Order: sequence, then structure tokens, then C-alpha cells
Amino acid sequence: MKPILVFQTDFTYKEGAVSSMYGVVKTVDRELEIMDGTHELPQYDTWSASYRLYQSLQFWPEGTIYVSVVDPGVGTKRRACVAKTVDGYYVVTPDNGSLTHVKRFIGIEAVREIDESVNRLRGKGTEGVAIFHGRDLFGYTAARLASGMIDFEGVGPEYPVEEIVEHEILEPVAEPGKVQGIFEINDPNFGNLWTNIPLKTFEEAGFSYGENVHVIVRHNGEVKFDRKVLFHKSFGYAEKGAPMVYNNELMKVALAVSQGSFCDQYGLNYGPEWTVEFVH
Amino acid sequence: MKPILVFQTDFTYKEGAVSSMYGVVKTVDRELEIMDGTHELPQYDTWSASYRLYQSLQFWPEGTIYVSVVDPGVGTKRRACVAKTVDGYYVVTPDNGSLTHVKRFIGIEAVREIDESVNRLRGKGTEGVAIFHGRDLFGYTAARLASGMIDFEGVGPEYPVEEIVEHEILEPVAEPGKVQGIFEINDPNFGNLWTNIPLKTFEEAGFSYGENVHVIVRHNGEVKFDRKVLFHKSFGYAEKGAPMVYNNELMKVALAVSQGSFCDQYGLNYGPEWTVEFVH
Amino acid sequence: MKPILVFQTDFTYKEGAVSSMYGVVKTVDRELEIMDGTHELPQYDTWSASYRLYQSLQFWPEGTIYVSVVDPGVGTKRRACVAKTVDGYYVVTPDNGSLTHVKRFIGIEAVREIDESVNRLRGKGTEGVAIFHGRDLFGYTAARLASGMIDFEGVGPEYPVEEIVEHEILEPVAEPGKVQGIFEINDPNFGNLWTNIPLKTFEEAGFSYGENVHVIVRHNGEVKFDRKVLFHKSFGYAEKGAPMVYNNELMKVALAVSQGSFCDQYGLNYGPEWTVEFVH
Repeated sequence: MKPILVFQTDFTYKEGAVSSMYGVVKTVDRELEIMDGTHELPQYDTWSASYRLYQSLQFWPEGTIYVSVVDPGVGTKRRACVAKTVDGYYVVTPDNGSLTHVKRFIGIEAVREIDESVNRLRGKGTEGVAIFHGRDLFGYTAARLASGMIDFEGVGPEYPVEEIVEHEILEPVAEPGKVQGIFEINDPNFGNLWTNIPLKTFEEAGFSYGENVHVIVRHNGEVKFDRKVLFHKSFGYAEKGAPMVYNNELMKVALAVSQGSFCDQYGLNYGPEWTVEFVH
Repeated sequence: MKPILVFQTDFTYKEGAVSSMYGVVKTVDRELEIMDGTHELPQYDTWSASYRLYQSLQFWPEGTIYVSVVDPGVGTKRRACVAKTVDGYYVVTPDNGSLTHVKRFIGIEAVREIDESVNRLRGKGTEGVAIFHGRDLFGYTAARLASGMIDFEGVGPEYPVEEIVEHEILEPVAEPGKVQGIFEINDPNFGNLWTNIPLKTFEEAGFSYGENVHVIVRHNGEVKFDRKVLFHKSFGYAEKGAPMVYNNELMKVALAVSQGSFCDQYGLNYGPEWTVEFVH
Repeated sequence: MKPILVFQTDFTYKEGAVSSMYGVVKTVDRELEIMDGTHELPQYDTWSASYRLYQSLQFWPEGTIYVSVVDPGVGTKRRACVAKTVDGYYVVTPDNGSLTHVKRFIGIEAVREIDESVNRLRGKGTEGVAIFHGRDLFGYTAARLASGMIDFEGVGPEYPVEEIVEHEILEPVAEPGKVQGIFEINDPNFGNLWTNIPLKTFEEAGFSYGENVHVIVRHNGEVKFDRKVLFHKSFGYAEKGAPMVYNNELMKVALAVSQGSFCDQYGLNYGPEWTVEFVH
């Protein structure tokens, strides 16, 4: 069977962009299977693109081709590429930081720059269009790769994996009874905040389920949240409206409010300026 | 052909949760067909989950497996189950009220608790995760059932249908020339409100298309809307911006504003505290 | 292979309407392939429906059946139809202006009114429902057409293409060094505004990439924006937050703010009352 194509973009479904992009894929090869990853990534946010790739990629069948289009530099000199991971997935994306987590936590075996002279949609009035690579370049190339019209070599010239553009990733700091990290991403639907601290690090520092953990959140050093919070297995263990520390779906420490929004309730957010400290 | 899997959740498409869940399904069996029911159910709202199941299930082919994940109690003692309806559909869901309407208005033949020792995703760093049963339990089990890897018995132990958790459903009260009920749900997009009053009951009480019906809406007994409203077949019969009474897609009496929002225009909502009275 | 069905509506995914509609399609023929065009068209906005059809249709494989349901007149005398384009696509839609751009810029070969006595869902309690033609009429008829249960003649009686309901389309006015048009639609996600001026007209009037163009936007004749704006190939050529003139995905002149919203930043919108003038 031909590999699945999964798409994530910041296009939303509000107008005709996703439809046009998917139409191109189906015109390349009617048999290809298209799945929505998400089209609601925060606009221009290559950090989120990178994180969501890392969060979801491994759960798809080996060989899946993930197309990620958050592309504020579309039409400029940034590279358009296809990366092959060490575990056999392909990511089709602008090389603009969107590969940060996949490179760091999964590993990229090889990367190739898309050769526009071959792998670009022609006709249908698209010749002079420079602003929609999702439709004209990324979707089109991914479809050709999935259908077997080109192989990985056929994408275009290889370049060193070391040249892939990366965002900085911060590491947590742990000592017995104390761990410090950052909120590195949110769950924008439920208002949870996810730290960069693995559960393993947390447990090794002495924290365990059922404990009330002292949590201090700072924004640029200024304290924004300072209280004891229950650390437990799942949301239902806290009272409705109460904050809790939990182990998230990627085995990292996170904060939530049971049936509420931790972000909104306490006015918190994510990014390197948001540090979080857990004390035993 | 293998049954279709339809998913409804309160996850939204804002991050990677739906993608991860669908990836698991495709990894179980690449051939399975996945359809979005909706991922925009109101958060934690098992009443809405129940109503949307009832609204949509019957329109799918017999044998369809509907996965519903609105799960505020994830990780706690609430049962995870698969229900088989009397007309041959399967619903995979936490047993938390989400089966209320299907049980009452369609009928459930049998229900089984998902045996986590067999029907739970292993590996990929998911062993210690307690908070994402959509991915690790419901999606995975539904995929195994759809692919034929397990049959209904293979889900886990049966338990009495009578033990299924239900929300209270209120019945309308009718007499000649007068019907009283509640707004039991909304159409959140168009701002319509749907009563619990079947068209049949309404017509038997003497109301007919073309009539101006006296409508009184109360919130906890306090009158919030009191005026004559045209009862007609469809929205186009009322002037733009005018309220109207109509027969909704489930053959129940509903209120709308033509090309507007009845909820927003009059500050109304749904729930047992919102009663509506129609007088001839 | 059977043609693909692509759907665009103003239903949103917030409740069970899309699910019910798709279920009907799959019940007609389990093999049919359904793709989301969009379900987030602005409510009741047949102009947007028309524009999005025009924007996306041509990128799908020939023979694709596009179902468009923005239907404020549902249940009234407006025609329900299937149009066949000159390039071999089908559009299933209420005849209410939604075919404007396809008729004008692509061309319609023939149009037929859906015969409800044949092509309407029966049973499942839908007999008295007048307000959900997406489920009961358009989706159902499109599915029957795609599956081969009916051919184009089987839709219902043909009527003259000239009778198709159209919105007025305004044409731009050009002279050397000066072009005037309107903002005819937006990109609601990124906040861009798209004019009705083809790139070709713009270039023939003497404008070229790299130039600072004098742009005057008027709302009902009153100046709302008046400044020099860079005209370039893509967003990355302007500084973040700066406005720019660019060539959009349909080869028309458009305005954006690099990594921002042109609409929001300057309080502008689209429609015939929003004129835009470019001076060399």
C-alpha cells in the first residue's frame, strides 16, 4: 500500500486553501490517502509545528509522509525540504525550525532540498504564484513521493543534516527534592501547560503520585503562581476547578485545572521566559 | 468491508491529539476508514456527547463503530465500554452519561467493559500515561474491533445494560392548545435552540404551519422571552432577523432567527432550567 | 474509480450535522470517498460559497463532484440543482448565487433541477424535515450520482443555464500607471484582502516587483488607507508587521501584512463598497 499523507498547517479550514492543496494531491494520484493532522497550528509558529510533529509522528505507521506547512518565509531563500527520520518516516516541510524536535528526539537520517525545477505544480494558472507552496510545492512533492513517481533521491539534492535550521531547546535542571524547567508548550484546547521535564527526571528527584508539590511559576523571574498542588495520575483525582500536576501523554510533567483551564485561571503561558520550579 | 470508524471528541484540532489517536488506528490496521464526527463538542459535556450520538448514529451504515471521547473522569474508576445497539451499531465510549440518548431512544442490546490488560496500546512510551484513553484505549480498541482482531466478546466482560450511567431526560407536557417542555440542546453554529417536544406532540396539541404561536421562555421560572412567533416549515418563510418556530432535523420543535442567532438575539440558552411554553 | 465528493458548507463541525450528512453518503454507497472542502464558510454567505468553489474546484481531478451547501432559502422555492462545468466537474448546490464565479470564469455546460420525488432521502424519520437539504437532498443526490445509481440526466429536469442565479461581479478599471478595483474577498485566517485585479492587468499598467506602490483604499468613497506599499513576490520580502502588495494564489493582486493581519491592522474589509486604487 502507498504511504499515508498527513498534513499539518496554520491555514485553518476557513477558506479554500486546504481544499486546493488536497485537490492537487488527488490529481497527482487518485489512490492516495490524506489525513488531517491539524490545520489550526498558531500562525507562523514554527516552534508549535515542530512540537506537534514530535508529538504525533511516531503513532502513525512506518513510512507515513507528514507534510508540515507553517511557512512565514514562503517565496524567500529558506529551503523547502524532505527529511527522512531514523525510524522510517518522511517529513515534507520548509526548513525553518519545524524539524527541531524530530531532529533532536527522534533523529534525521538524511535531508534533501526540493528541486523546484522538477517537483513543482505546473499549469492551472499557478506559474507566477510564489506564496502558496503548500499547494504548489509541498503537497505536490509529497504526493509524488507517496505515489512512487519519485523516490527520496528524486526529491532533489541532499544536504548535511547539520545544516537543518533548529530552535534552541532548553533542558530541565534536577537535584534531589527539586526540579526546574520551563513550560515549553500548551494544550490550547484544555488550557494545560506542558513542561520540558520528563516524568522520569521528576520521579528520580523524589516526587510521587498523591503528593502535594510546591509549584512556583515565574515569568521573566517574577513569581506568577506559588502554591501546593496535588500530583496525581489523572484529572479526576483533583476537585473540579483545582489545579494539579500530572504526567502528560508524552511522559512529561504538566499542569492542568480539573475541568478548567490552567492557563486562563492563573494567567500563565508558555515559552522560555516561563520557568517552573517543583519543590518536594 | 470493514466497518467505518467515526470519532467525536472534545479535543479540537488545535494540537496533536487527534492526529496521534488516528495514527494509532492506522497502525493497528492500515485499511480502516476513519471519519470525523466532530472534535468540537463542548468540553467535559457528556450530555452533548450523548445528544450528538443520538443525532448522527442512525444515518451511518449498520455496523458502524462510533467512538465518543468526552472523558472528564479519564484515569479514574469510571468504566470504559463498548455498547452494541439494538439496530447493529457499536459505540466505544467512557460510560459516563454519553450513552443516555442512545440507550433511551434507540436501545442498547449489550455492553462490555474494555479489558485494559488486552485492549490497550503498548510501547511508544505510553506505558505510564493515564490521561489519554482516546489514543491508548478507545481508539485502539475500536480499531481492533473494526479490523476483526477481536469480536464484541473480545472487548472484555459484559455487564448489565441497566448499570449504564444515564443523565435524566425530561419529558414534555401537552394538553389541547398548550405544550410545555425545555430547550434540551442548541445548534451552536446557527444559534438555534431545540426543544424536547416532538413535532407529533405539537401537532396533536393543535398547532399547525402558518400559525403565530405564543411562546414563553423562562429561566428558573423567570420570563425571558414572551411573544408571538411564526411556526413554519423552514427559515425562508420568516423575514430576515425575525424569530420562528420550526420542525428540526430530528422532528422536534425548535426556535431560530432567520439568518440570525436566536440564542444571541434574546440571550437564551439550553438546559433543564430553561423551560419553553407554546400556547395556541 | 468513482468520483470524489468534496463538501463545503457553513455548518461548522460544532454539532452532528456534518456527521449525519456524511453518514447518508456512506449509507448510499460505502465505497464513496468524502473530502472536506470547508465547513466554515461565513453563515448564509452565498458570495463566499461562490468564490471558494471557483478557488478550489479546478485543482481536483476531473469528474469530481463538489457539494456546496450555503442555503439561507432552504425549504422555500429556490431551486436545488446540479451544474456540469465545461471542464467536466459537477457542482451540487442550491441555485442561489453560489454558482456565480464558476459560471462566469469556468463555464457551465448544463444545469438540472434535483427532482425531490426521486432524489430525496426516505425513512429514518426524515419525511417531514424541510430544513436540512444538505443531508436529505444535496448529499444524498451527490452520493447517488457518484455511485452511478443515477447519471446526470437522472438528477431531474434540465433548465437553461441563463436562468442560474448570479451575484453581480465588478470589473477593475485600468489605465497606464493606475488601476482601480475592489476588495472582493478576504483570506479570513491570515487577514489578507484579495482584489478583483488580475496580476496581468496590474503589470500591463506598469507595476513591477520591488516597486513602492501608492495604495488608496476607500469605504463608500471615504479614504481609509493611503500610503506607499511594497509590491513583491512573497510575504518574506516585507518586514514583519509591514503591509505589502503581492500576487495571490489565483494570480490576482492582494494586500497583506507580513506575519500580521492587514484587515485587523487597518480596519479594512471586503465588498463592493471597498474600492482600492493603485497609483504608479
